[in-house]
Amino acid sequence: MKTAVSLQNLPSRIPNRRSRVRKPRRSRRSSVQLDRVVARLPSIVGGGSVLTDRAELVCYSYDASCYSRLPDVVVFPNSSEEISKIVRLANRERVPVTPRGAGTSLSGGPVPARGGIVVVLARMNRILDLDEDNLTVTCEVGLTLRDLNRSLARKLLHFPIDPGSSEAATLGGMIGENASGMHSPRFGKTKDRVLSLEVVLPNGDIIHVGSKCFKSASGYNLKELFIGSEGTLGIVTKATLRLSPLPDNYTVISASFKTTVAAGRAISRVVKRGLPVSALEFMDRPSIEVVKAFTGLPLPQAAAMVLIECTGPEGEVQNHLADAAEILREEGAFELRISSDRGEADRLWHARKVTYGAISRIRPTAIQADPVVPVSKLPDYLARLDLIAQKYALKIVSYGHAADGNLHPTVLIDEGNPEEMRYARMALAEIYQSALELGGTLTGEHGVGVEKSDYFNLEWPSNVVSVMREIKAVLDPNNIMNPRKWI
Amino acid sequence: MKTAVSLQNLPSRIPNRRSRVRKPRRSRRSSVQLDRVVARLPSIVGGGSVLTDRAELVCYSYDASCYSRLPDVVVFPNSSEEISKIVRLANRERVPVTPRGAGTSLSGGPVPARGGIVVVLARMNRILDLDEDNLTVTCEVGLTLRDLNRSLARKLLHFPIDPGSSEAATLGGMIGENASGMHSPRFGKTKDRVLSLEVVLPNGDIIHVGSKCFKSASGYNLKELFIGSEGTLGIVTKATLRLSPLPDNYTVISASFKTTVAAGRAISRVVKRGLPVSALEFMDRPSIEVVKAFTGLPLPQAAAMVLIECTGPEGEVQNHLADAAEILREEGAFELRISSDRGEADRLWHARKVTYGAISRIRPTAIQADPVVPVSKLPDYLARLDLIAQKYALKIVSYGHAADGNLHPTVLIDEGNPEEMRYARMALAEIYQSALELGGTLTGEHGVGVEKSDYFNLEWPSNVVSVMREIKAVLDPNNIMNPRKWI
Repeated sequence: MKTAVSLQNLPSRIPNRRSRVRKPRRSRRSSVQLDRVVARLPSIVGGGSVLTDRAELVCYSYDASCYSRLPDVVVFPNSSEEISKIVRLANRERVPVTPRGAGTSLSGGPVPARGGIVVVLARMNRILDLDEDNLTVTCEVGLTLRDLNRSLARKLLHFPIDPGSSEAATLGGMIGENASGMHSPRFGKTKDRVLSLEVVLPNGDIIHVGSKCFKSASGYNLKELFIGSEGTLGIVTKATLRLSPLPDNYTVISASFKTTVAAGRAISRVVKRGLPVSALEFMDRPSIEVVKAFTGLPLPQAAAMVLIECTGPEGEVQNHLADAAEILREEGAFELRISSDRGEADRLWHARKVTYGAISRIRPTAIQADPVVPVSKLPDYLARLDLIAQKYALKIVSYGHAADGNLHPTVLIDEGNPEEMRYARMALAEIYQSALELGGTLTGEHGVGVEKSDYFNLEWPSNVVSVMREIKAVLDPNNIMNPRKWI
Repeated sequence: MKTAVSLQNLPSRIPNRRSRVRKPRRSRRSSVQLDRVVARLPSIVGGGSVLTDRAELVCYSYDASCYSRLPDVVVFPNSSEEISKIVRLANRERVPVTPRGAGTSLSGGPVPARGGIVVVLARMNRILDLDEDNLTVTCEVGLTLRDLNRSLARKLLHFPIDPGSSEAATLGGMIGENASGMHSPRFGKTKDRVLSLEVVLPNGDIIHVGSKCFKSASGYNLKELFIGSEGTLGIVTKATLRLSPLPDNYTVISASFKTTVAAGRAISRVVKRGLPVSALEFMDRPSIEVVKAFTGLPLPQAAAMVLIECTGPEGEVQNHLADAAEILREEGAFELRISSDRGEADRLWHARKVTYGAISRIRPTAIQADPVVPVSKLPDYLARLDLIAQKYALKIVSYGHAADGNLHPTVLIDEGNPEEMRYARMALAEIYQSALELGGTLTGEHGVGVEKSDYFNLEWPSNVVSVMREIKAVLDPNNIMNPRKWI
């Protein structure tokens, strides 16, 4: 099974290249300061809502990535006002604060890399206002996506962003990492569906940004500054989200290819044609084999599989899938199957959804990357991934959200084997470097967290990192919010 | 015809309510400093690219709003590097810099409210890279939307954001104001279609934010901080935009209503149903009458008209319009017409597009507002607009992008009549105040500019304005970028 890597193995901080920025002050926390914070927390949240026992702290030391570090104390606030008091106290005492949802992050985002306080939002999980006329919902962000969607299903509505962790992820985590998932071609990313936020700033101020409106050009877009900021600028506590009616019908076409590159070409052409697909996923041979063994589903023998979903009335869906099928065939798809009913479509999506879980069983350690390339570069990128795997004699399994050019190359190793571990690090660096060389970005939906901190300045030149640091410094001058990450 | 209001009549600055922010320093510009700047500009851009003659300056003193102020000098740079030098010089000498596209802004955004340098981007209008495989284009932002779309049409592509000023607006202006228009239900706002930006910061640094990818969770979303910032944080010089294939077919349904409130209810229900409309527009009786007189089109006798466009294959469009028609009828539409051919659809859209121009002819001065309300509040808001018009005995014409809850109530007055002018100000304040009371926002697509500066702190409480000011202050500590606006 997966093993956690302690913080000794964390990538080092981003080198501070010719920075012209006022650098956030390093926390000069003494144990006296920490003790004062720990002593006062029960008066804010109540005695039963503060954990300091080592065995309990362990549960809040890791996420779904390989990184972990013990917090000094864990609190479970019940309201934004309590969070405001916690943060104000921490800011005065220079104690780090790391917000935490369900801990499903794959980048080490909620790992308290400098210890301090972990603020778990689990108890702040109420739906505050469901506005069916406006198709919006306002909730506390400790709510899980699953619980939200179960409530909404009764009204034939849903919040349509579906990360792989949709069964467990909280809305706060999704907002922190700008999560997306399989259905982003139709429904967008988290940022596209968040209308407004309540945020507790490091100074304790509670601010509201955005509005319930579907558009605005009023002032700086602070809302999108907080989305994807991984808890480094403040703690998001409430959100108003834009909903969609549940789709009444969806059909999935699956196509098999003899090479990953041919599949990449087909994907690029489907996107170029502008077909209104609701999902467009890619799986390479190892992913197919693993999922087949894991689920028993009759998946094809192929070097790659492309799955395309269309949503809408029966006739429309058939038309769009016929257009897609034509392209797929022209690019060499040798087996095309259109799911005949919803059950079959659901089984195919289940297969795709369990891919990471299934892959994680092959070797003791699975390190999942999250690069994105311009979709036209997918064939090139898939070819490069093959070369990287060969070069380091590593098993690298690739699958992902192809319509966005977002793949999850996953390096499978045994962490107990230092040589494999060293090669894995080198392979990951090349996986990211290659994406950037093709005009890509480090992360599509997992965030930078701890995992990609070392690569951050490969993507962003020092003058961009400077601007990010200046913004961090004005909002969080004592650098208490989720410190020792990429910023 | 429309008269310009000089800056004496500008709204005063937003009161600086219990601000805890480092306020950007006021420019303490002397004429010596300005003279030095004017003397050096020709060495940066060439002598023929600098205007100081008063008659010429007048052309760059106003936009499509009522505000104007003479700049001290106008420059026409040819490259980002020249802009960098201009801005660095201006920053050293504390001379204001206001970027300008085509001057089609309706909020006073590009009016140089403190004089100084107006930087006109008209010469930076090259298409640098059209990537048909990735459906993206990279261009200099002095390019007009019309010229871009003419080039793209040859490839059956378009940049689908269509503000009312689509014949003249530049991409830079659209980015500065986060413009949108009639087709945002399908294609989104400018921010949804901008993948990356090149920006010259006030210190002269040229930075690149975003990437060519369709998604990213890498670092703070600086791109969206610059979009809609109205040139107050830097000068956007290049952009990579996400394109769409030209739609092959579109049909428009028009429905007439006996009351604006019934029309509002119908709109809200169409949105709630989640129908995939590509546009959903509203016109009240005065707009219909004016456009009828202006264009000679056979528009209905009605209190309100709703126009809905669907795009896609023939069969699909008919199905969606049938669904929409059912709702419209249930809410009391008494005349439904489906455009039988593209020509008829185009004529209907032409009618809607010329509304502002036609209305401007009725009275000497037309002040167009841009409020947004949650779409479910449209019926309430339309009722309030009627009351405001009655209260001040003013003609207020309303029309707009109803699917987004974005209306353009336009107050028609004679500016020479001081009483009317006073009432108009009071009515505008109520128009915005009412939108905010219903959970709305001041501006959907025009920006705050000069026009809405006075109302800005009605929308945003002081702790949010503080954060915006802090961000402005770190990027533009000398407050040279488009000063004396809302920030």
